[in-house]
Amino acid sequence: MIKTYVCLYQQHATDLPECIDLATNNCYDAVAIPIVNTLFYRELAAQPIKSRHAVFSRSDLILKSTDWLHKVISVLSDNIDCDSPDEEVRRHSEATLIQEMSFAEHLVQHGHMMVRIKSGRTVNFARLISRSIKGTVLAAVPMVDPNYMKQVWRSDCAEDDVEGSAEDTWTWWNKFRTAADFNTKIKLVLELSEDLPSKESLRRWLGEPVECIIVPSHMFVRNKNNYPVLSKAHQEILSKFIGNNTHFIVKASREDGSLRHYAEYIKHLVEKFKVVDPMQGFDDLLEIPLQPLIDDLDSYTYEVFEKDPTKYKFYQDAIELALVDRVPDSKISNKPVIIMVVGAGRGPLVRAALNASANTGRKIKVYIIEKNPNAVVTLTSLVEELWSDKDVQIISCDMRDFTPPEKADILVSELLGSFGDNELSPECLDGAQKHLKPDGISIPCRSTSYVNPVMSSKIYNLVRQVVVDRCTNPREKMHSYSTQAENNYVVYLKNVYHIAEPQALFEFNHPNKDKVIDNSRYKTLTFEVTQDCVLHGFAGYFDTILYKDIVLSTHPQMHSKSLVSWFSMFFPITEPQQLKAGDMLEVNFWRCLSSQKVWYEWSTSHPHMSHVHNHNGRACPIYK
Amino acid sequence: MIKTYVCLYQQHATDLPECIDLATNNCYDAVAIPIVNTLFYRELAAQPIKSRHAVFSRSDLILKSTDWLHKVISVLSDNIDCDSPDEEVRRHSEATLIQEMSFAEHLVQHGHMMVRIKSGRTVNFARLISRSIKGTVLAAVPMVDPNYMKQVWRSDCAEDDVEGSAEDTWTWWNKFRTAADFNTKIKLVLELSEDLPSKESLRRWLGEPVECIIVPSHMFVRNKNNYPVLSKAHQEILSKFIGNNTHFIVKASREDGSLRHYAEYIKHLVEKFKVVDPMQGFDDLLEIPLQPLIDDLDSYTYEVFEKDPTKYKFYQDAIELALVDRVPDSKISNKPVIIMVVGAGRGPLVRAALNASANTGRKIKVYIIEKNPNAVVTLTSLVEELWSDKDVQIISCDMRDFTPPEKADILVSELLGSFGDNELSPECLDGAQKHLKPDGISIPCRSTSYVNPVMSSKIYNLVRQVVVDRCTNPREKMHSYSTQAENNYVVYLKNVYHIAEPQALFEFNHPNKDKVIDNSRYKTLTFEVTQDCVLHGFAGYFDTILYKDIVLSTHPQMHSKSLVSWFSMFFPITEPQQLKAGDMLEVNFWRCLSSQKVWYEWSTSHPHMSHVHNHNGRACPIYK
Repeated sequence: MIKTYVCLYQQHATDLPECIDLATNNCYDAVAIPIVNTLFYRELAAQPIKSRHAVFSRSDLILKSTDWLHKVISVLSDNIDCDSPDEEVRRHSEATLIQEMSFAEHLVQHGHMMVRIKSGRTVNFARLISRSIKGTVLAAVPMVDPNYMKQVWRSDCAEDDVEGSAEDTWTWWNKFRTAADFNTKIKLVLELSEDLPSKESLRRWLGEPVECIIVPSHMFVRNKNNYPVLSKAHQEILSKFIGNNTHFIVKASREDGSLRHYAEYIKHLVEKFKVVDPMQGFDDLLEIPLQPLIDDLDSYTYEVFEKDPTKYKFYQDAIELALVDRVPDSKISNKPVIIMVVGAGRGPLVRAALNASANTGRKIKVYIIEKNPNAVVTLTSLVEELWSDKDVQIISCDMRDFTPPEKADILVSELLGSFGDNELSPECLDGAQKHLKPDGISIPCRSTSYVNPVMSSKIYNLVRQVVVDRCTNPREKMHSYSTQAENNYVVYLKNVYHIAEPQALFEFNHPNKDKVIDNSRYKTLTFEVTQDCVLHGFAGYFDTILYKDIVLSTHPQMHSKSLVSWFSMFFPITEPQQLKAGDMLEVNFWRCLSSQKVWYEWSTSHPHMSHVHNHNGRACPIYK
Repeated sequence: MIKTYVCLYQQHATDLPECIDLATNNCYDAVAIPIVNTLFYRELAAQPIKSRHAVFSRSDLILKSTDWLHKVISVLSDNIDCDSPDEEVRRHSEATLIQEMSFAEHLVQHGHMMVRIKSGRTVNFARLISRSIKGTVLAAVPMVDPNYMKQVWRSDCAEDDVEGSAEDTWTWWNKFRTAADFNTKIKLVLELSEDLPSKESLRRWLGEPVECIIVPSHMFVRNKNNYPVLSKAHQEILSKFIGNNTHFIVKASREDGSLRHYAEYIKHLVEKFKVVDPMQGFDDLLEIPLQPLIDDLDSYTYEVFEKDPTKYKFYQDAIELALVDRVPDSKISNKPVIIMVVGAGRGPLVRAALNASANTGRKIKVYIIEKNPNAVVTLTSLVEELWSDKDVQIISCDMRDFTPPEKADILVSELLGSFGDNELSPECLDGAQKHLKPDGISIPCRSTSYVNPVMSSKIYNLVRQVVVDRCTNPREKMHSYSTQAENNYVVYLKNVYHIAEPQALFEFNHPNKDKVIDNSRYKTLTFEVTQDCVLHGFAGYFDTILYKDIVLSTHPQMHSKSLVSWFSMFFPITEPQQLKAGDMLEVNFWRCLSSQKVWYEWSTSHPHMSHVHNHNGRACPIYK
C-alpha cells in the first residue's frame, strides 16, 4: 500500500529549499508551490513562442532531481483563460500555459504539476494540458462551488435560473476530463470548503480518480484544548476519501503558527479512518471470468475458494435443514439420504454434507461427481485418509453425462459465478437434475442476477488499456476495436459511482420443472438517474437461495457478511455516455445460447442508443 | 456503373418459376416474394428451436443457384414482433425470424432478403437480424408514415401530443440501424406513398444508404393516353434517388394488366433522370490528402490537375487583371513585369502567365520556382522547346529557401488543398513573400476554409473499415482505435446529408502583413440542427480570391462551374452522435503548429462533448 502523503501548499515562496525545510520540519512530506517565482520578471511579448526566452522561474539547480520528483508539486499560474473569447487573452494564456508546463517538465519529467479548473468552459485548456503529459497533472476543483450552493438554496431564484446560471463543480471537472478524453495522467484534486456537498454528490466524487484533498487552513477550528481540528461533518467527508487512499494538501501561510498541528492532525485522521480491507490490492483490477467447464481449475484456485469463511458454513446449514425436512426426527433410520455433490472440486461440499449428517444425526450416502481428473486425485486421498468410514463414492465424469445407480434426495452444487449463471449452472443442473427424485431438493434452488449502471473512469481506462494491449499484439485476431472492448470482467469495485440501485435481471430455478426448458433470457430494465454523471458500464451481482431462508448474496445492499468468494461482474460500454439528472436509462440484457456456447449481450436504448455489445458472443463466449 | 434493376414484388406467389417467367416477360429483372409459401403449413410449436423441423417453404431445387442469387429477393414474414412485451409472442417471433433467415441463407448464401420495420421498438429485432448476415438485408420503411403525416397536419392535436405519439419513419430506421451498429450489409428500402416527404426530410433520406424504392401499383395514375405514370411530384422525388443509383421494386398483383407498363415507365424515368457525372466512380471514396511539400508529385497527378478546364483559365484572367493594374495602357514599355511562379509543377501557371502577357501586351519576365527535380526536367524541356523566345528562368529549389536576383511584382502560386491551407500555403507563401515588392501582388491573395456537419453512414463505415484494415496489419503501430479513426480524408461527397449550411472557418491573406505572423487558428462554430439526424463528421471546403473578383470555390453553394481539381475534405468523428431538431451543435476546430508539422484538431462541445480528434497531430500530421 502506498503511504498517504501530506503536502504543504504555499501560495508565495521565494526560497524553495528553505520552504522544503519548513515543510519537513513541520511533518509534511512535500510542498506545492507556484512554478512562477513572483520575484522574477516575466515577459510574454508579442513574439512567436519559439523565440521567447525569459527568466521567469527558479533555476533547476537549486534542488536535486529526486527532490524535484518527490518533494515538489509545481502549481501553474491560474490567472489565465485559454478559452477566452478575446483572442489576445486566449493566445497570451496559451503561451503562458505552454511555457509553464514545458518548464515544469524541464525541472522534472515525471513529476506533479497542478492546475485549477475555474469553469465549465475549458475545451481548449483541456486540449493543451492533455497534449503530452509526462508525469501527473493534478486538476484542482472546489468540492462545492460556493456560488452554486448559494443559488441552489436561494429561495428567490426560480429553479430554471439556477440551472442556467450555475453548474456544479463536478460538471466543470467532467467537461474538462471529457475534452481530455479521460486521460489517465490527469487526476482530480478536490478543495474542501465550508459548504458541505450533498450525500449524493459526495458519492459521485468518490467514484472519480481523486488523488488529493486540499484542506485550507481556515477550515480548521479550535477544540477545547485549543488544538486545530476539523468539524465532525468535514471529518466524515475525509474519512470516505481516506478509504480510497487519497492524499492531502494543506494550504496555509508560512507565518501560520499551527503548521505542524495541521499535518499531525491530518495524519491522525488517516490512521483513524484507514480501513483494513482483506481484499486490498484487488481494487478495480480486471479479471477475466473463470470458465471451469472447459478449463480445469488449478489447486491454487481451489484453495482460494475453500478459504471463504462464510460460503461452506451456509451450505452446511442448508444441507442440515434439508436433511431434517427429508427425515423428521420421528423417522430417523438406517436408510441413508442420497446426496449427490455435482462438481465437487477438492471436496468442501462433501465435507459440509458429512458435517450436516453428523450434526443432524441423519445417515447419508454421498456420490461425489467431479470432471476434473486432477481434483479427483485429491478427492481419492480424502476418501482414503479421512472418509474411509463414510458412505461416499467418487464418480469421475461430467455431471451432464453420468449414470448413477440410484436417484438423489439432495443435489448439491456450487456452480455459480459472479453473475450467478455465468459458469453455466443452469445448463449443468438441467443435465444433472434427471438424477434427482421427483420430490428431491436442489441446493441451491434459485439464483438471480442483478445489474446497475456505474460510472468509473478508472475502470473505463483499464478496459481501454486491455484493448490497446491486445491491438499491438499481432497474434490476437482483431475484429475491430469495439468487439475487444466488449469483454465482461470480474472486478472488486471500489473507485466507482453507483448511478442507481441494482435491479433483478435473470432468475433460474432448480430443479427446472418447465415443460420446455429454455435458458435464454431477455430483459429490459429502466434506471432513474438522480444526478448528472457518465455511464461507463454495468456492475453485475447475484444472490442464490441455497435452501429456504439461507441465502448467499453479493448484492451490495444484501451482501452476505464475510463472503469473499465473488467479486462483482463488470459489463463495459464501448463509449462513455453523458447522463443527466432525471434521465430514465433503459438497458437491455440478453442471455443467448448456441450449441457450443452461452453469452451475454447488452445495450442501452434510452436516452442514448448504443450498439449491441458482445453481439453473437464475439468478445466473450462461455463454452459449454 | 451498376445497372439499375427493376423488381416485381408479389405478395402471394405459389409457383416461383412461373412468377419469374411472368416478371421476365414483363421487363422486370427480378422478383421479390415471401419466403413462406402460404400453401404450406408451418408449425412453430413450443419446442426447442433445434428440434423443430417443418416444411414451410419451397424446395431449393426449383431454381438454379444463380437464379436464387440474381432473380429473387426473399421477403420475410412481417407478422412478427421480436420486441413484444409479451414473452410468448416475442419468443415465437424470434423463432420465426431465425428460421426464415436461416432458410433464406440456405437457398442462397449471399442473396437478398427483405424485412419490414414497423415501429421504433426494434432493438431485439435489429440484434437478431444483424447477428450474422451473409448477403444483404433490405430493411423496408415507408418514406412517410401516413399516421405521422395525419398527426402533423391535424390542427386539433397539441404539438406535444404529436411528438409523443408518433415518430417519423426515419426515426424507425435510425433506431434500427443504430441498434444494428450501422451494419453495412443492411440497406434501406423506402416505400413510396401518396403523402410526400418534406424537402428537408427528402434531403435526409438521400443521405442514407437507400438501395431500392418500392413503388406500389396504386401510385400510378393514367395519363391522357391512358398509360400508367407517376405524378410530377413523385417523379421529382424519384429523380433524386436515380442520381444516387437506387433500384426499384414495383409492388403489384399478378392479375394487374399494366405490369409491363410499370416496368417500362420506371426504366424510362431512370434513363430520363440519369445524371452523367464526370466524377462517377469517385463517389464517397476516401483518399488521403496529398502532402506535396514532403512527397514529390508524380507525372500522373500533375496531368490530372492540369486537365481542370476552369482553374487555369481563372488564373490567367487574374494575371491579366493584375498586369493591367500594374502597367496601365499609357505606361506600356519594354521594362518587364517580374512574375514569380512558386511551385510551378509542370508549368501550367507559367503558361497562364505567358498567355496573359500576350493577351494584354504587357512584357513579363517569369521566374519559375519548383522544388521537385522531376518536374524540373519537364520544365526544362518546355523552356527549350516552347518558351525559348520568352524571358523565363527556372530556379530549382524550395520557395522558402531561394534567393532571387530581383523582387517580384506578382507572385503566383497554386498551393491550395481541399481545405484551402492544408497543403501549407500560408507557411510557404510567408516564406516566399520576402521576394515580393512592397506593393507587389500575390495571386491568390486570400483563402478561406468552410465546414459543415454531415450525416453519412456510408462514409462512417468506410472510415471504420480503414481502421479495421490497419489494425490487422501488424506493421502499422496502433496507438488505439480512436487515433486511427481520426484521419481527415479527401472525398467526393455524394451519399451525404448536410445537417446545416457551411460556415467560414479559417482565413489567410497573402502577402501576410501582420507584425507577428501566426498561422495557428482556433474557432468555435455553432450550427442549428433542423431535424433529427446523426452526426458522422464534418465536410470541409474552401474558396480563394485569386485577384479582385476572380474567385475559385468548392463551397457547395458557390462552387465554381466545372472546377474538378478539388473534392471536399472530410473530418470524421470517432463515435456517431444522435442529434435532435433544435439542437445547437457547437464545434471546435484548431489549426496547430510545431517546428516540423502542421495539423488540425476538432471536437464537439455541445450538445454532446467529444474528445479532441487528431490530438497533437497523432493521426494525420502535415509535414513542413
